[in-house]
Amino acid sequence: MADARRWFNLSSPFPMKRGGALVDAHLAYETWGELNAAKDNALLILTGLSPSAHAASNADDPTPGWWEDIVGPGKAIDTQRWFVICVNTLGSCKGSTGPADINPATGEPYRLDFPDLTLEDAANASHELVRKLGIEQLACILGNSMGGMAALAYQAQHPNSARMHISISTAPQAQPFAIAIRSLQREAIRLDPNWNNGRYDEERYPEAGMSIARKLGVITYRSAMEWVGRFARIRLDADQRKDDPFGFEFQIESYLAGHARRFVRGFDPNCYLYLSRASDWFDLAEHGGGSVSAALSRLGVERALVIGVDTDILFPLTQQQQIADGLSAAGAQVEFVALDSPQGHDAFLVDTVRFGAVIGGFLNAA
Amino acid sequence: MADARRWFNLSSPFPMKRGGALVDAHLAYETWGELNAAKDNALLILTGLSPSAHAASNADDPTPGWWEDIVGPGKAIDTQRWFVICVNTLGSCKGSTGPADINPATGEPYRLDFPDLTLEDAANASHELVRKLGIEQLACILGNSMGGMAALAYQAQHPNSARMHISISTAPQAQPFAIAIRSLQREAIRLDPNWNNGRYDEERYPEAGMSIARKLGVITYRSAMEWVGRFARIRLDADQRKDDPFGFEFQIESYLAGHARRFVRGFDPNCYLYLSRASDWFDLAEHGGGSVSAALSRLGVERALVIGVDTDILFPLTQQQQIADGLSAAGAQVEFVALDSPQGHDAFLVDTVRFGAVIGGFLNAA
Repeated sequence: MADARRWFNLSSPFPMKRGGALVDAHLAYETWGELNAAKDNALLILTGLSPSAHAASNADDPTPGWWEDIVGPGKAIDTQRWFVICVNTLGSCKGSTGPADINPATGEPYRLDFPDLTLEDAANASHELVRKLGIEQLACILGNSMGGMAALAYQAQHPNSARMHISISTAPQAQPFAIAIRSLQREAIRLDPNWNNGRYDEERYPEAGMSIARKLGVITYRSAMEWVGRFARIRLDADQRKDDPFGFEFQIESYLAGHARRFVRGFDPNCYLYLSRASDWFDLAEHGGGSVSAALSRLGVERALVIGVDTDILFPLTQQQQIADGLSAAGAQVEFVALDSPQGHDAFLVDTVRFGAVIGGFLNAA
Repeated sequence: MADARRWFNLSSPFPMKRGGALVDAHLAYETWGELNAAKDNALLILTGLSPSAHAASNADDPTPGWWEDIVGPGKAIDTQRWFVICVNTLGSCKGSTGPADINPATGEPYRLDFPDLTLEDAANASHELVRKLGIEQLACILGNSMGGMAALAYQAQHPNSARMHISISTAPQAQPFAIAIRSLQREAIRLDPNWNNGRYDEERYPEAGMSIARKLGVITYRSAMEWVGRFARIRLDADQRKDDPFGFEFQIESYLAGHARRFVRGFDPNCYLYLSRASDWFDLAEHGGGSVSAALSRLGVERALVIGVDTDILFPLTQQQQIADGLSAAGAQVEFVALDSPQGHDAFLVDTVRFGAVIGGFLNAA
């Protein structure tokens, strides 16, 4: 199977924000384009909760990436100009060290023995990689969703580490609606008897809990408006229904089931729990003496593009505005774009025409 | 224990829309005020999914009702003027016949042998009661949330049955976002091994599934905006946390847990499933040859008040607007009020000052 991942060994022990340290941990990452001689054309992408480092196809792995329409030669993030790096988040299960990996101290998977994970830790791990690649300052750090929070954590801990910042559908701190959703997703997994305090295996796997968590995720990642146009009240064909008095009857239900089916075995449940909790914990104000705007004033970014979507219920537009306002007050040249994409939080993955135009325009002006 | 409920025996057999019939079924209801000699001052309240018929305190039951601030002498729904009737929905578990009751054919609880329930059936049951009380035409039929859908079903099946209609935070048909939420709530209950295909008891009770369903309900009944102001990122005191790595940490989580705790044993899970599915099935267009507006044109109402809340994500304002527009096009005198209450779908239960003023104003003008 094609694999374009490269591997980077973190310093060992790698200290974690809330205590403990990782021994012999590593990151998986992919790159596109070439780092120039001045090493000033690097663009780092930090991802949402579930994507891998495979943002786009490349020579070693020609399969389409999760942001195939955005990243590539001549595309919005033009790999003929930028040296693009995408990192699999520390704590994930797509190559970087996480709860599903072997704990070298025991020879067994970490599971719940993995230390508390924060987005600050994930950011620090990416920062180590960037420095190891010989990059003193990134041309741009870009983060989507959870990756946007990690990008803020990165810059808060390493001011002036990027000249430009692109912040997409993210938050300077987790708000209670998003915490409530994520807490309920974690609860659904933990209540599944097969979760078994994290000690599941392929035979006894918390499929039901993961399915509920994923469906709830998809419900909050899209928008009611999109679904009215897409699914309305269309029924399933009779042969798609199960012989079950409370079985699925509407297309929207089988759409959610399809999303869940593709996800439940593809993402490790303990990794999901760790990354979900890390998102709840994130509060940029911790880096600004209790103030988000104080923290934003210290990032040291020169130009910023902040994009939000008005149908996003998980990371509402007001939070994007807060980031834009804070960076602007700090003297950065800020472009704030509120898109009316109907796809909600997921619009950056779907409405790539609109997102591409805005991102390309911002980067081309550099 | 105080009990103001009255009982009404439905015609037997009572035919159900999707087939089957109920034998010896009954409704629980409460009343306030007096029916006048002309029998033209009756106001019928149809409730949301979970409330009982006890909308307000009365002589037989002085405990506060679920709409205590709205219903009473001198209040917005003035019981000195109106003869107010509130019905526990057919299929519920607060006195009216539902899946938790004994099936006279077997001597055992109906459970999943209860026939398919629709809001049309619930409406027809209420209509029988109203006729039995000697009321030819209601002065007003008022429905909140699911009760608003039932009120539309009532009038669609019995045109000209009410001179006035008050429609609150409801929908002329279930849309895919609401269907997705309710489907997931039902799935959480059905996946709980203790649900056991509806054959639970007090010892083996689907508490976990009901808890997830209720929390998801509360998340969609309120609004992100309200919670930012109310909970922000406030942590629980250390002594409120459980010794659990993924246990609750934020106030919003214990708030949801409190709501779930008060609900899971207070509402029968099978009744919940039946009423939830009935809401998904509701489509007023079925009464208008496939057109919502055609159906609305036939209700025969003279005056209508349609209230929605702009923070309601479950029954969005566009759906209230659709009801108002349809009734207006049919020649009714329509008042459409979009309130900016921060409490989302539940605002009618919480922001009673604003709702009371609008409802009182409409009724006093009659």
